[in-house]
Amino acid sequence: MTPKQEDIEKAKRIRKGDVRTASRLIRNIEDQIPEAKTTIKHIFPHTGKAHIIGITGPPGAGKSTLADALIGSFREKNKTVGVLAVDPTSPFTGGALLGDRIRMQRHAEDHGVFVRSLATRGALGGLSKAVGDAVHVLDAMGKDIIIIETVGTGQQEVEIINHSHTVIVVLVPGMGDEIQAIKAGIMEIADIFVINKADRDGSRQLYAELMAMLDMANISSDGWRPPIIRIENVFEPISFQKKLEELSGKIEGHFQYLMDSQLLGDRLRRKSMMEINEALRASILEPVLKELAENGELEMMAEKLIQKKSDPYSLAEEIAGRYLKNVP
Amino acid sequence: MTPKQEDIEKAKRIRKGDVRTASRLIRNIEDQIPEAKTTIKHIFPHTGKAHIIGITGPPGAGKSTLADALIGSFREKNKTVGVLAVDPTSPFTGGALLGDRIRMQRHAEDHGVFVRSLATRGALGGLSKAVGDAVHVLDAMGKDIIIIETVGTGQQEVEIINHSHTVIVVLVPGMGDEIQAIKAGIMEIADIFVINKADRDGSRQLYAELMAMLDMANISSDGWRPPIIRIENVFEPISFQKKLEELSGKIEGHFQYLMDSQLLGDRLRRKSMMEINEALRASILEPVLKELAENGELEMMAEKLIQKKSDPYSLAEEIAGRYLKNVP
Repeated sequence: MTPKQEDIEKAKRIRKGDVRTASRLIRNIEDQIPEAKTTIKHIFPHTGKAHIIGITGPPGAGKSTLADALIGSFREKNKTVGVLAVDPTSPFTGGALLGDRIRMQRHAEDHGVFVRSLATRGALGGLSKAVGDAVHVLDAMGKDIIIIETVGTGQQEVEIINHSHTVIVVLVPGMGDEIQAIKAGIMEIADIFVINKADRDGSRQLYAELMAMLDMANISSDGWRPPIIRIENVFEPISFQKKLEELSGKIEGHFQYLMDSQLLGDRLRRKSMMEINEALRASILEPVLKELAENGELEMMAEKLIQKKSDPYSLAEEIAGRYLKNVP
Repeated sequence: MTPKQEDIEKAKRIRKGDVRTASRLIRNIEDQIPEAKTTIKHIFPHTGKAHIIGITGPPGAGKSTLADALIGSFREKNKTVGVLAVDPTSPFTGGALLGDRIRMQRHAEDHGVFVRSLATRGALGGLSKAVGDAVHVLDAMGKDIIIIETVGTGQQEVEIINHSHTVIVVLVPGMGDEIQAIKAGIMEIADIFVINKADRDGSRQLYAELMAMLDMANISSDGWRPPIIRIENVFEPISFQKKLEELSGKIEGHFQYLMDSQLLGDRLRRKSMMEINEALRASILEPVLKELAENGELEMMAEKLIQKKSDPYSLAEEIAGRYLKNVP
């Protein structure tokens, strides 16, 4: 078999839902093995069918528990689910820290559920691209629902979460003043808010603040006002189940709204733009960095900076002159 | 005056500590005005004298309060201080959210203190570069101490914090399970740990966990074991002052250690490498992205992806062929 035929075979197996081939490809994506790219090229035309749901929020907000409950809820409706647990918090250790995500393993026996964790191994700016590619894998496998779970609300997390159609932001009461900063950052990306542990002190205040923020925001442009769902106690099955149904109703409602209002096109455009940006980085910047690292020039340039013999901009302009053509 | 003479003039004024010129330059760095680059080139040779201290940790950990107290402590020792409050959490709103950083304004009347906040306005990956450049400005102004304060411990924050010599990670008890993930991410960057609000439940457990982690970590390679300082109550002036002195002693001790052990060179190399990477991105990738955006090609490519007429990698390779030369 030629390498190309092999890629076509792999893509076929993934489309049939083959877990082993899919897992290996996701691992290769994570490890930034160049060959992964060619398989992605073959599966890409078969993507775009899943409803992609992003879940984000600060550490300790209970995102994994919620994701786990949502899996159960979607499975009851006979929908297949793929989950990508993304860990941008450990740039050094390599490999996503499972932590309480292990909980989701109760679905491990269920063939309708496929859970994978993802981290980058050091490469700057590579995580969002890896997430995008891994989502394509789950999508091509035919999963009806794909959940992307990530920690935090920094810019990198926003990039990750922008791979989804519906974004759920999970908050908890009592996070202190800096919640203001967080809220400003996620305001524009949240489609649904969940206040978890809503029996805690400060829950009412958080709710009131979110409501005030939504009142102030100009939502007339796209017409969707993010609902706020308060979940009091995950250990009280009946009330939790009711809240969960409310949440999954809102999730489906949001996707329907996107389709009816043509806003789905806007989201797809944003997502595609981001993917192009990331692919351009990989095709234009990275080969140059790779060569400079291999021939020792990066080291030499660092030395020049330390000795104040040059500055970063002059050095970079020189390199750009050597590798770029046709740029005005 | 020619533009070049003007830049030399600006650089001179900054070196004399002129607040207005420095502020304007930092604003231009933040807004990614290309002209800022040429001024940076002129001040770069005059940098490298300050002790740069990074403070990071999760939202609500009390970083700003601590930074504020440290300013006071350094001022008592007649050291001049520059502070850069970095806000990576609001990629959309533009402009750093001051929040409780306003507190630091009590030093506004003190000419030995210069506080600036910094955020990016949308550009991906630009924040760390902006921080690096802004630090050069404060450094060239002659500040003895530069404090970089940022929220969170994601990869982007690690990049930001890597601009410093001494990294303080501030934690609070009771953050839930995901503290594990956070701790793994910051393990390798922390030079000093502070447990704030150490009178809270879970403080002992957090301390024990950190100690266990430090015991496990291989610190023999660089020989510095990050101390853990517990701060119980900022409202109790005497005990707080004592803890603060302990902290500032450890900060100075760490810098001394870096110098004595030649590890300062390693840090400088890491920092320079990062700056080169960022400058290369700005000189190689960004001009291409700019042209593709201006001539409408980015939009067209996004459309092709949505219609599944191509995939991101094939499109990016085509563009790379058009703009790159001399790459194997």
